[in-house]
Amino acid sequence: MTQHASQPASQSPSNAESDAGSSAGSSAGSNASTAFLAACRDAIGAAHVLTDSHDTAPYLTDWRRRYTGAARAVLCPSTPAEVAALVKLAVEYRVALVPQGGNTGLAGGATPDASGAQAVLSLRRLNRVRDIDPHNNTITVEAGVILAEVQARAEDAGRLFPLSLAAEGSCTIGGNLATNAGGTGVLRYGNTRELCLGLEVVTAQGEVWDGLRGLRKDNTGYDLRDLFIGAEGTLGIITAAVLKLHPQPAARVTALAALASPHAALDFLALTQRFAGPLLTGFELMSDFCLRLVGRHFPQMRYPFAEAHGQVVLLELSDSESEEHGRALFERLMETALEDGLVQDAVVAENLGQSQAFWNLREHIPLAQAEEGLNIKHDIAVPISRIGHFIEATDAAIAEAVPGARMVTFGHLGDGNLHYNVQAPEGVDAKAFLAEYQSPINQIVYDSVHRHRGSISAEHGLGQLKIDEAMHYKSDVEVQLMRAVKRALDPLNLMNPGKVLR
Amino acid sequence: MTQHASQPASQSPSNAESDAGSSAGSSAGSNASTAFLAACRDAIGAAHVLTDSHDTAPYLTDWRRRYTGAARAVLCPSTPAEVAALVKLAVEYRVALVPQGGNTGLAGGATPDASGAQAVLSLRRLNRVRDIDPHNNTITVEAGVILAEVQARAEDAGRLFPLSLAAEGSCTIGGNLATNAGGTGVLRYGNTRELCLGLEVVTAQGEVWDGLRGLRKDNTGYDLRDLFIGAEGTLGIITAAVLKLHPQPAARVTALAALASPHAALDFLALTQRFAGPLLTGFELMSDFCLRLVGRHFPQMRYPFAEAHGQVVLLELSDSESEEHGRALFERLMETALEDGLVQDAVVAENLGQSQAFWNLREHIPLAQAEEGLNIKHDIAVPISRIGHFIEATDAAIAEAVPGARMVTFGHLGDGNLHYNVQAPEGVDAKAFLAEYQSPINQIVYDSVHRHRGSISAEHGLGQLKIDEAMHYKSDVEVQLMRAVKRALDPLNLMNPGKVLR
Repeated sequence: MTQHASQPASQSPSNAESDAGSSAGSSAGSNASTAFLAACRDAIGAAHVLTDSHDTAPYLTDWRRRYTGAARAVLCPSTPAEVAALVKLAVEYRVALVPQGGNTGLAGGATPDASGAQAVLSLRRLNRVRDIDPHNNTITVEAGVILAEVQARAEDAGRLFPLSLAAEGSCTIGGNLATNAGGTGVLRYGNTRELCLGLEVVTAQGEVWDGLRGLRKDNTGYDLRDLFIGAEGTLGIITAAVLKLHPQPAARVTALAALASPHAALDFLALTQRFAGPLLTGFELMSDFCLRLVGRHFPQMRYPFAEAHGQVVLLELSDSESEEHGRALFERLMETALEDGLVQDAVVAENLGQSQAFWNLREHIPLAQAEEGLNIKHDIAVPISRIGHFIEATDAAIAEAVPGARMVTFGHLGDGNLHYNVQAPEGVDAKAFLAEYQSPINQIVYDSVHRHRGSISAEHGLGQLKIDEAMHYKSDVEVQLMRAVKRALDPLNLMNPGKVLR
Repeated sequence: MTQHASQPASQSPSNAESDAGSSAGSSAGSNASTAFLAACRDAIGAAHVLTDSHDTAPYLTDWRRRYTGAARAVLCPSTPAEVAALVKLAVEYRVALVPQGGNTGLAGGATPDASGAQAVLSLRRLNRVRDIDPHNNTITVEAGVILAEVQARAEDAGRLFPLSLAAEGSCTIGGNLATNAGGTGVLRYGNTRELCLGLEVVTAQGEVWDGLRGLRKDNTGYDLRDLFIGAEGTLGIITAAVLKLHPQPAARVTALAALASPHAALDFLALTQRFAGPLLTGFELMSDFCLRLVGRHFPQMRYPFAEAHGQVVLLELSDSESEEHGRALFERLMETALEDGLVQDAVVAENLGQSQAFWNLREHIPLAQAEEGLNIKHDIAVPISRIGHFIEATDAAIAEAVPGARMVTFGHLGDGNLHYNVQAPEGVDAKAFLAEYQSPINQIVYDSVHRHRGSISAEHGLGQLKIDEAMHYKSDVEVQLMRAVKRALDPLNLMNPGKVLR
C-alpha cells in the first residue's frame, strides 16, 4: 500500500542515447532514438540536447534524493515554439517527456523513470519576464523564471507577489504552477492557483495554447487554466503565466499566544479573524513538544513563555496602515482573548528583531527534528474545524500501535494544513524505527485523514511518491473522471506518464 | 456573426410528450418517449414529472424572454440519487438534459432548444442546507438553495457569504456555480469559483462524484471542481457544494470621488489599494453621461457634486474595526488624492443613509437607461490597465460608424468589468436603431475587446446567446481543448447540448 522507500534506481547511463537503444532492445529502436535526438538537435541546437551523463545527472535525481531515473536526453528549449517543436517530435517518435523546472519538488514529479526511454524537458531557459503591469496588478513570466525573481520584480514595481516557500531561491514558477504550490501566504492570498490569471501551454499535440489573459472576470467556456495548474505536467507543458500582484503592506507585525489545546487555538482563530479580517496573513500552530525539541538542539533559542503551555500560536498581520496600527490591533485582540480565558499568555513583537525571533522558533522546528533523527513526515490537510479531533484521534491510534512514538505536530492552522511528523520513541534507533513502522504509521495517518475528509497531500502534490495512496483513497468515480481527462488531452500518454494517476 | 436577436422560438407544446413523439417522427420514437417518461415517474414520482404545458411553461422561457424552447418534460428530482437515476435513464433513452436552477440566467443557458426532444432537469427541490461549520468557515448546500438563503444562514452563524447580485432573491447556488457568477463582491472576495471549496456532481454517466471537500489546500490530482464550475451544465450536473464563508466586517463605508478621466480613475485605484489594501470591496466607475441620464429620469436624485466631472467613482470599504476607522481612512485617502490633483472633488458618506444614496445613484443607471429606451448591452472585461484605452478606442469607432450614438459606460472598474452599453442618438427611435445597428455595434465592441485581450462575457457566461462569438474569437487550439474535454466527460452529448460550445 505504501511505497515511501526509494524505488529501485537505475544507474545513470554513461550515454543516454546508447542506453535508450539498449532499453528498446533492438537496433530499430536504437535508430529511432538516434533519429529523434538528431531531430531535437535540429530543432533547438545541439548544445541544448544533453546526453552526456555528466551533463544529465543533475536532472535525473530529485531534490530529496528519493528517486534516480534515466533519460535518453535532457532537452533545454528556450522558447515556447521550441517546446512545441520538441513535443511534435516526441509525438512522432513516441517519446515520453518529463517536464522539469528547478527540480525542487518533494514528490518526485519531475524525475524520469528508470527505463531510460523518457526525455527530460527542462524549462529553465524559458526565463524571461515578459511584462509587468502595475495598474493591472499582473506580471507575465515564462515558466523557468525563479520564484525569488518574480518577488523581486514585483517589489521593484511597488507590488507584492505573495507566493513564498523554502525553495524560493531555486524553484521555478512553472513548477509552482504544475504542483499548485502552497507556502506561507495561503491564509490571505491563496495557493499558486489563486495567484494565476492566465497560462500559455504547449499541448500534448505540440500546439501552443495562448491563454495568457490578465482578467479578473472571464466566463467564456471551460476553465482550462485550472486544469493545467496542479496537473504536474501530465496534461501539457506550461510555458508562461500571467500572475496576480497585490499592494505591498505598510508593515508586518507578529505575536505569540500560549493556549491549552488545538481546540482553544480554533476558537482563538475565529476571534482573530473577527478582529483582523483580511489583514491576518499567518496563523501557525506549534505544539509544546515542538518547542522543547527546538530548545534541546538549539539551547540559545529560549522557550518564549515563562511556563510551558500545550500549544503556541504564531500570528502575523500585514497591515496597510502602519506598524503601530497593527500592534495596537494585536494588543486589543490579546486583551480580549486573555479576558475570555482563551489565551493563557501572549506577547506582541515590539520590533523587527523580535518578529524575526518568533519566526525563527517556527523555522527551527524542522531543523531540530532533523537533529533528533530521521522521522516520518506527512503533509496533510483536514477541515480547520476538525484539526483538534484529528490530532487527538491520530495521536491515540499511533500511541496504541507504537508505544512511545513522539508526534511533532505543527503547521499552517489557518489553512487546515499540518505537518504531522512522527519521531521514534526516546532512545530508539531512528533507522530501525523507520524500517519497521513507516508503512503502518503512514496507513494510520492517511486512514485518519480520510476519515476526517482531509487531503493526503496538502501542498506537495502526488508526483510518483503518493500515487498509490491517491488511487487507494480516491473514489472510483473520481479516478475515472481523472483518467477520462488524461486520455482526452494526452491520448498517447507522453506527458509525464506514471505521475499523478495510473 | 452575431445572433443577439431571438432565435426562432417554437410554440410551447400543449403536451410535451406527444410533441417529443412528433419531433422524432415515428411511433417507435413516441413509444420510447412514453417509456422514458414512465421510467422517470417510477424513479422520482409522477407528481415530479411535469408534462402539462401549464406546468412546464415557466421553465421553457428564459428570464429576459429572449428564448422560448420546448421540452418533453420538466423533471424535478429532490435528491442527488434521484438526479443520478434520471441521468441513467437519459443515457438509456438518449434524452438530452437541460439543468435549470432559478431560471435567472442572462444567456439562455438553462432554456431547452425548440425541438421538444430535450428534458429540463430542475434542481430547485434539492434545497437543503446540509451543514454549516463556522470554525471551518464553510457552508454545505444543495444546488437548489436560493442565494439569499445562503447569505441569511451565514449571517445567522456570524459569518459573511459575500456573493451578491441583483437576482439573489431567486437565483440558486447551482446556477451561480454553473455560470461562475460575479456580482458586487468580486474585487475583494472573487467570483463564485473563488467561493467554492468542493462539489458534488452527477456525471454524464449517472454516477455521483462526492467532491464535497472543505479544504483550503488539497493537491491530489486534477482540478475537477473548477472544470464543472462555469461549464453551464454541459459536463455534468452540480448537486451540492461546500462554500467559503468570511468574517463579517464591522462596518461598510462608502465615498464618491470626481475625476477627469478613466485614466485618472486607474491612478486613483492604485492609490486606494495602497491605502486600503484588502479592505477595499467596491470601486465602481460611472461616466458623467450615466449620472446625467439618472438626473433626467429621476430628478429627485441629485448630481452628487456642485460641478460636472468626467467620471465619478463610488468606493466601498469593509472595515474589520469600526465605521470611524473606515471613514478616517477614506478621509486621509481623499486628502492625498486631492493634493496630488488626481481627484477633483470628493465626499465621504457620513452615515448609512448617505451611503445608501450613493449606491442608489449607481443602481439607478440601468433603470434610467431603460427609461431612455432600448439599448445595446455588453458585459465585457479587459485588463484593468487598458480600460482607458479601450473606452477611447471603442467610443471613437462607434462614433465613426454611428454618429450620435450615446455610450452609457459604467461598471466594476476594480475588476476590469464594464457595462459598455450603447443608446440610440438623441431623438432617434430606439427600435429602429437596434434593428439596424445591433449587429455592427456588437462587432465593433467585441473586436475591440479582442484587440485589448479582453473577455466578451465577463460574468454572464455564454449559454446559447454568445456561442457564435465565442467560437469566432477563441483560438482553434482552445476550441479543440474544450471539445476534447466535452467528449471525454459527456461522450453522448446529453448534458445541455448546444450551450457553451459547438
